[in-house]
Amino acid sequence: MDTRSPGTTHLTDEQRIDWLRLIRSDRVGPHTFRSLVNHFGSARAALDRLPDLARRGGASRPGRICSEADAHAELAASRKLGVSLAAPGEAGYPPRLAVLDDAPPLLGVRGALDVLMRPVIAIVGSRNASGAGLKFAGTLARDLGEAGFIIASGLARGIDQAAHRASLASGTVAVLAGGHDKIYPPEHEDLLAAIVGTNGAAISEMPLGHVPRARDFPRRNRLISGAALGVVVVEAAFRSGSLITARIAAEQGREVFAVPGSPLDPRAAGTNDLIKQGATLTTEASDVIHAVEPIMGRPIELREPDNDEPLDVDPAASDRARIVDLLGPSPVLLDDLIRMAGTSPAIVRTVLLELELAGRLERHGGGLVSLI
Amino acid sequence: MDTRSPGTTHLTDEQRIDWLRLIRSDRVGPHTFRSLVNHFGSARAALDRLPDLARRGGASRPGRICSEADAHAELAASRKLGVSLAAPGEAGYPPRLAVLDDAPPLLGVRGALDVLMRPVIAIVGSRNASGAGLKFAGTLARDLGEAGFIIASGLARGIDQAAHRASLASGTVAVLAGGHDKIYPPEHEDLLAAIVGTNGAAISEMPLGHVPRARDFPRRNRLISGAALGVVVVEAAFRSGSLITARIAAEQGREVFAVPGSPLDPRAAGTNDLIKQGATLTTEASDVIHAVEPIMGRPIELREPDNDEPLDVDPAASDRARIVDLLGPSPVLLDDLIRMAGTSPAIVRTVLLELELAGRLERHGGGLVSLI
Repeated sequence: MDTRSPGTTHLTDEQRIDWLRLIRSDRVGPHTFRSLVNHFGSARAALDRLPDLARRGGASRPGRICSEADAHAELAASRKLGVSLAAPGEAGYPPRLAVLDDAPPLLGVRGALDVLMRPVIAIVGSRNASGAGLKFAGTLARDLGEAGFIIASGLARGIDQAAHRASLASGTVAVLAGGHDKIYPPEHEDLLAAIVGTNGAAISEMPLGHVPRARDFPRRNRLISGAALGVVVVEAAFRSGSLITARIAAEQGREVFAVPGSPLDPRAAGTNDLIKQGATLTTEASDVIHAVEPIMGRPIELREPDNDEPLDVDPAASDRARIVDLLGPSPVLLDDLIRMAGTSPAIVRTVLLELELAGRLERHGGGLVSLI
Repeated sequence: MDTRSPGTTHLTDEQRIDWLRLIRSDRVGPHTFRSLVNHFGSARAALDRLPDLARRGGASRPGRICSEADAHAELAASRKLGVSLAAPGEAGYPPRLAVLDDAPPLLGVRGALDVLMRPVIAIVGSRNASGAGLKFAGTLARDLGEAGFIIASGLARGIDQAAHRASLASGTVAVLAGGHDKIYPPEHEDLLAAIVGTNGAAISEMPLGHVPRARDFPRRNRLISGAALGVVVVEAAFRSGSLITARIAAEQGREVFAVPGSPLDPRAAGTNDLIKQGATLTTEASDVIHAVEPIMGRPIELREPDNDEPLDVDPAASDRARIVDLLGPSPVLLDDLIRMAGTSPAIVRTVLLELELAGRLERHGGGLVSLI
């Protein structure tokens, strides 16, 4: 998967079906997808090897592999809804999102695809926002829109909604946690229709028909921040979802902005804390614009080629056994595991991939893995 | 005036009268007082030279020199009110205040003088504060008081009052803009009585009978910040007096803390702006305590001996004329003036002192001077 030249990639119809089959198969996430395609050279070759890899990883039952028919059906249904499935580097795939480690191999994109190629600022915040918070989010979204930025948010109640509505004319992007046909919350279907009907777009990495569950929202949040130059958090209580987005944004190297509030207002506790941790205090659009202007000038930092993390075609059974022994329910650092295993990194990575495809491995953030 | 050993100084009765006469004489401020005493060796010697210096500076009429009788009268009246006139380094003179360039030579101190020797945090803010602002100021003052800090403020309505009231039990200091017998606002005489009657103190550099005018408040504000380790600004609109205190505090090397608020609340515009400029965002006492703890451990940075800025006993008339020519109504940097005058710094400083005592020179901040 070459992402070094965004905008120039174009999958063949056949490749797109293969990619879709691979990413829709059980236990294949964006990371695993990348490892497999890098190692086996194509999604097709990886699909052929999936059952064998999972069996070697000790799968109790084989994971479901998405059939060609199912992939064709999803592609057709998506097209009918006006949704294209874009690969990193293709038109409609936000360029900054394309260079993330865990960029979705295929992103369902709908609406005015050109807005997805323009500079994006994300605005997120509480669902139960105050009147002042809603008003501020609207003013900020309008001012940033007038300055030429596209506003991304999560289509939720409260701040998200206010940000989308205020940037309908200038262009806004709804980032969905479920499939394009399973809008959450349902009462925002009209808002979504207004977004894609005017000058905006909606994106999702989930298949059609996927009803969003609680765990899909943090996963979705990485796309909100990943597509953007920076994320503005407007009102957020302690331990709220918006703070997760802010944390992910910082990990992704995105600018984090936070709107201050009274220490006596619990809805400002999270944003004040972000500022204490280094987020840029934001009271007006110019605070955001001044901070991201220097970044916009820079070319998007391209992902390194992946051949620095090769796999090994066929680890010895003894290596596999030793690595499984070293793993347990407590997360351990991949680097420590490689050191303790006394074997090559390629072998360790291959065994972990096998375990993952067998449904026996969990990957945590920060290079930590554990046995399930 | 040796301030290198705070706590050990003790003026004789005679010296105190001389010091009081000199600082109460026309056109003698803390800076001039220091130059004169450093140069002539004592306040008494400086008093003898005042008329001559002012005449050489071109005084149209001689400035009034405070008589010995008037000084004795002020001292007696002060004593009657329970006010001591303390010199830097004497008991009751806040140690951090004592080391400022423009420390008052004599400070009228009243109440529990020991609190003036303890670590001080200043809390200031709007007179027309919001309910939330008043509540926060009270909570912060109480928490900092419980942590062992003395709270200083300006006895004004609003934030000041809330901070004083909440720290009555732990100890609070009212810093006055007028004389100890001219309380502003008058309705806070009861509050002041409560402060000095329990565990607190009041300080003023002004003579008894001095009714505070508008220009006395910025001057007073340097004492609020100067006595403190840091200044917390709770609610402040743009261009408000509290922001002047914050600016002076920063110039004095004090920590500046600001309490955030909604961008839509004009009473938070000043504090949010302070945070953008580097003030520490403050939502609870621990934000203040963590920032000042490392400073408290350090010994108070003592003022350098003053003999690095000597005067010249008798500048030539030609030097004096050239320096006056170089001056005008636009402020000019003292350093530039010294360079342009083509003469010794001591001569320039002496001529400026003469002009000052003649009422012809104005000193601005940052080493700027202009002709009046």
